Amino acid sequence: MRIITLTTDFGLEDEYVGSMKGAVLSINPEARIIDITHRIPPQDILRAGLILKWSYPYFPENTVHVCVVDPGVGGNRRILGITFRGAIFLAPDNGILRLIVGDDLPEATVEILNRDFFHKDISRTFHGRDVFAPVAAHLTRGVHLETLGNGVDFGNTVQAELKKPIRQGDDHLLGEVLFEDRFGNLLTSIDQITLLHFLKRFPEKLPVLNIRGIHICGMSESYDSVARQTPLMIIGSRGYLEVSVNCGSAKDILGAGPGTPVQIGFEK
Amino acid sequence: MRIITLTTDFGLEDEYVGSMKGAVLSINPEARIIDITHRIPPQDILRAGLILKWSYPYFPENTVHVCVVDPGVGGNRRILGITFRGAIFLAPDNGILRLIVGDDLPEATVEILNRDFFHKDISRTFHGRDVFAPVAAHLTRGVHLETLGNGVDFGNTVQAELKKPIRQGDDHLLGEVLFEDRFGNLLTSIDQITLLHFLKRFPEKLPVLNIRGIHICGMSESYDSVARQTPLMIIGSRGYLEVSVNCGSAKDILGAGPGTPVQIGFEK
Amino acid sequence: MRIITLTTDFGLEDEYVGSMKGAVLSINPEARIIDITHRIPPQDILRAGLILKWSYPYFPENTVHVCVVDPGVGGNRRILGITFRGAIFLAPDNGILRLIVGDDLPEATVEILNRDFFHKDISRTFHGRDVFAPVAAHLTRGVHLETLGNGVDFGNTVQAELKKPIRQGDDHLLGEVLFEDRFGNLLTSIDQITLLHFLKRFPEKLPVLNIRGIHICGMSESYDSVARQTPLMIIGSRGYLEVSVNCGSAKDILGAGPGTPVQIGFEK
Repeated sequence: MRIITLTTDFGLEDEYVGSMKGAVLSINPEARIIDITHRIPPQDILRAGLILKWSYPYFPENTVHVCVVDPGVGGNRRILGITFRGAIFLAPDNGILRLIVGDDLPEATVEILNRDFFHKDISRTFHGRDVFAPVAAHLTRGVHLETLGNGVDFGNTVQAELKKPIRQGDDHLLGEVLFEDRFGNLLTSIDQITLLHFLKRFPEKLPVLNIRGIHICGMSESYDSVARQTPLMIIGSRGYLEVSVNCGSAKDILGAGPGTPVQIGFEK
Repeated sequence: MRIITLTTDFGLEDEYVGSMKGAVLSINPEARIIDITHRIPPQDILRAGLILKWSYPYFPENTVHVCVVDPGVGGNRRILGITFRGAIFLAPDNGILRLIVGDDLPEATVEILNRDFFHKDISRTFHGRDVFAPVAAHLTRGVHLETLGNGVDFGNTVQAELKKPIRQGDDHLLGEVLFEDRFGNLLTSIDQITLLHFLKRFPEKLPVLNIRGIHICGMSESYDSVARQTPLMIIGSRGYLEVSVNCGSAKDILGAGPGTPVQIGFEK
Repeated sequence: MRIITLTTDFGLEDEYVGSMKGAVLSINPEARIIDITHRIPPQDILRAGLILKWSYPYFPENTVHVCVVDPGVGGNRRILGITFRGAIFLAPDNGILRLIVGDDLPEATVEILNRDFFHKDISRTFHGRDVFAPVAAHLTRGVHLETLGNGVDFGNTVQAELKKPIRQGDDHLLGEVLFEDRFGNLLTSIDQITLLHFLKRFPEKLPVLNIRGIHICGMSESYDSVARQTPLMIIGSRGYLEVSVNCGSAKDILGAGPGTPVQIGFEK
């Protein structure tokens, strides 16, 4: 157990991420630190939870995943650690962990309290450096999560929920855009399992997606299966329906963004 | 052989780069992963090829260089691996590798096909994570490139060419701006060898560069050899002519960008 | 001694940082390279020095800290190495090192001159890759700083000074905004020690901060101790007074930035 991943809203212009890494290496010089992203929009708990939910399964067992999107830093919000599917996750108690485990439950949930494993001075505004990094480093050195604090009931932690797609009558499914990626691909709240189950209702009909009055007919198997600058829908790499434009930005071309409704129906 | 470099257009806001690194470490926890850049403009094959061409020579022998700028992902474009000058390069068959080898040829060219070395599930939109990363990780564990697919003729791969500078009459050389860097320095298509050869025609005369009607007389040896906010020309760190402004942005001050003509002549 | 940190204004869009890392690994494949930041604004020596001053204490002993914000590259500015508080710092002689040591002095100061430890070809514009990276790599392999050049007098190096807060009469202290961070928090030039000493003058009175005519009464212990979108003042993680807005950007909401005066007084 030597790998620590970092997911934060600290950005890359300040020394925040560097200081966190220094704090880790001062405790475990052998730790491997991998950045998931530091460009979570400030205080965007939903995005932080989803980004980590979609990336952690690609890491080796026993990885320690640290997520610091923490508007309540220095106040009385708790810091939690969970063991879940062979990994450890550290995050403030603000809903991030609920997004990661989804409808499942962690094997253990601990409130991180043991100051023996924190930095000796703890600032009011930067627990990433003073609490999360040292605790993660100690975990990679073999300290047990249970040593770091008290077990708590996961059911009593702060909840955050991904909106589920809604069935409208017999032949429509309504979701929304969650966010766009760097390419302008629009990630929707419609997951593959729900979608495929829904499409089985009329297997002989072509599915039609409606976004801002624009209709996209049929699922694509690759971006270049349609002409350049043409919209398409595709099951993306996270197992969710995405709306894209071949060699273009669906966000710009469709004028869509977080919250834009996305409706799936069938050709007439 | 433990080092893997990554050059992509994935940006740093999403989980894409983190997931690729997780996929590598799941196969080879000892791999060293170095980011060249993830901020290639989306689908900009020319820039991706040049960025990697200019950086790979600084890495140790046997480094595995992975370049994923891949608008054709999930379609029928091939994925290629080459051995070239003691390193391995993996990229989609879209011209990137041609830009790297230039007028030279790789020692071996292989179409990557062997799914035993891919992730067990392969998404339609993210072969960086599901194909490139696992394949690179296996290469750093000693798997031979030839094991990964079939040898192909490099001459039949997709071509992309850097425009060469053009001689105009006896005393002019015409190139163009390729792109600007973070500082606003303008990298031109005029390489040092062509330039020095050209300048030997009138060794007693001062060279004069013309960009958007502004004339720069004489080559500089350092940025601060001219006054602040003054344009200059200099042989940059990549062995190409660059147009710069001391402590300023040549891009902004000269209003130039990719495609702007750059002409070299001699003082009257 | 295996850790090298990098603080530069090279940005992340070009190959500059990747090439530096390749140059390090070609000399010491075991070196650990940690990015502090590469997004120092171009040529911003003050910010570079402060960012490194605030992060280096979190790294293990014997770390080699490399800071390349270097508008004078290729000219006759010197490159310096110092040993200071158990670490080594490499930077151009342009004031960065003075900002790091503050009112203190380094244990040793060396002008880096020994070309045996540079790259064999040295470009005019990129000493980060051709000088700093190779020198840092050799230092992590056990080469002594003194081997790399000649001892010089730190007092004769270029000076850069952080403006100190100014006492106005009996009951006011005047500082200024140094810069904002990613969240829009405004870091001021008023350090904790000066501030706490000043506040002892009227320990029974609430301190009041005035920034652009807006008054903030009382120090906060955490961001969420005030209502959302409300300004507050707090001792930040660097030991300086910061002006923040709970879940918002103080920079945007207060319209402040580098140089904005910040005055501390007492309630009437």
